[in-house]
Amino acid sequence: MRRGEKRTPVRRSSHSLRVRFAETDAFGIVYYPNIFTFFDLAVEALLDASPYDYAGNLKRTGAGFPALECGGAFSSPIFAGDDIVVETDIEDVRTRAFRVRHRIVRGEEVLATGYEVRMYARKPPGVETIEGLPLPDELRDWLTEDNA
Amino acid sequence: MRRGEKRTPVRRSSHSLRVRFAETDAFGIVYYPNIFTFFDLAVEALLDASPYDYAGNLKRTGAGFPALECGGAFSSPIFAGDDIVVETDIEDVRTRAFRVRHRIVRGEEVLATGYEVRMYARKPPGVETIEGLPLPDELRDWLTEDNA
Amino acid sequence: MRRGEKRTPVRRSSHSLRVRFAETDAFGIVYYPNIFTFFDLAVEALLDASPYDYAGNLKRTGAGFPALECGGAFSSPIFAGDDIVVETDIEDVRTRAFRVRHRIVRGEEVLATGYEVRMYARKPPGVETIEGLPLPDELRDWLTEDNA
Amino acid sequence: MRRGEKRTPVRRSSHSLRVRFAETDAFGIVYYPNIFTFFDLAVEALLDASPYDYAGNLKRTGAGFPALECGGAFSSPIFAGDDIVVETDIEDVRTRAFRVRHRIVRGEEVLATGYEVRMYARKPPGVETIEGLPLPDELRDWLTEDNA
Repeated sequence: MRRGEKRTPVRRSSHSLRVRFAETDAFGIVYYPNIFTFFDLAVEALLDASPYDYAGNLKRTGAGFPALECGGAFSSPIFAGDDIVVETDIEDVRTRAFRVRHRIVRGEEVLATGYEVRMYARKPPGVETIEGLPLPDELRDWLTEDNA
Repeated sequence: MRRGEKRTPVRRSSHSLRVRFAETDAFGIVYYPNIFTFFDLAVEALLDASPYDYAGNLKRTGAGFPALECGGAFSSPIFAGDDIVVETDIEDVRTRAFRVRHRIVRGEEVLATGYEVRMYARKPPGVETIEGLPLPDELRDWLTEDNA
Repeated sequence: MRRGEKRTPVRRSSHSLRVRFAETDAFGIVYYPNIFTFFDLAVEALLDASPYDYAGNLKRTGAGFPALECGGAFSSPIFAGDDIVVETDIEDVRTRAFRVRHRIVRGEEVLATGYEVRMYARKPPGVETIEGLPLPDELRDWLTEDNA
Repeated sequence: MRRGEKRTPVRRSSHSLRVRFAETDAFGIVYYPNIFTFFDLAVEALLDASPYDYAGNLKRTGAGFPALECGGAFSSPIFAGDDIVVETDIEDVRTRAFRVRHRIVRGEEVLATGYEVRMYARKPPGVETIEGLPLPDELRDWLTEDNA
């Protein structure tokens, strides 16, 4: 890809999971902050599938992908034992961050939608700030690849 | 208050908490879905302070306040042991739902902002849907009261 | 099986999972209460595989399997991204409860061991006590079946 | 204290907390692994009260107190909104670890009991093992002090 060329990210991925009893609350449905955990699991699965060594880098260098911003809308309750799929689209890839859009479905039914902006950053040990880093080239290229 | 009169909610509250080690992740900071747990704790404290018997109703009738929608922006990492305050403003009170805006501060520093729309609802046992309910009058009145 | 006959439970099961970033803490390893969540997931998978309709009964009748007692010993840290297996043996099946023993392994390495005693019970809505129930026959028979 | 002298730890502490809705599950009570989170919070509060700078050391040097072993027995369900107290006794202080016994009460009623063995250790960044460390003298002395 040439410098300055416009990228239109099109990578899509989907992550299936069975909702855990642990993720519910006394109202009988998934405790809503855990819906962001589902979004996070989808991003984690996306990164695991990429050429970037997410788990290894986290352990060895302390690099990760903290969220800068996120949102969600919840249209239907989610229950323990539900088989759900988190469908994820890469919407935007910037120098140090990327933006994803999520949709959680159970069969045909859309249960929740949302988005996250995740930055690439390192938290050096012993320091209280995190430093943003340029996305590694192999990750940027992979995120912007059309896999539809 | 007369029927049809415009209400401009002005109730504000603040909830102090010490960040738990349990709420962090391997990146060394608060795991971001837990920031919504902080928002939820602020709403829980708000309801506990109101004339509505939140914990009692949850136990006896299964009524609660599931989130319909929410969002957050995170400007600074939050660490285990941090003393933070969640400042909450009631922004809008509708028939079956209310909207709050949150700001998390550590001293003078704003660490995160966000909002939630919470509906009043009951999940009847043995049924897979939740039914929206009109906010109880005493809660609506209290939420729209100026306590500044 | 005749009344009074001695049962020697021998059912074994194993549940594979990839450790989530969400399950770690600022020390860089799995936050230890989550190891009991791993044990719980293994029991949930065991029940899902049984003829007893765990998720359905939880939703419809409020019946579940609260823990009465448990313990764990942790010999090696567990990291985000680790592929682990929870190996579970049914050790004892009583009238209203059963006891399981767990072993968490990563490849050949044993990371943690533990046990749980889980009762069969129902929490009626609106009541603050939980009532123990005799294990359903089809579950008892299945739990005590030799599947080795 | 002279070398070789027998220490009989007698320090006691208690930590009050209000049970969060976030800590419950679809059975309507506290999800049991969270009872270990309550134990952990009691240890965290104990360390915060000690001369040892727990939060600071965790951030600056990566030193913490991972659990080696623990257990619990749960006699009564715990609900959202309950005001509970975790009473903690230091039972044993060794070179690199200490053992605590916990009792969770709501008013006069004992809801749960348990114990933990916590080691003092550091997880160096980039390394997959954790290294046990001798307890700092000021912490050891404080833990074994009679404050009854």
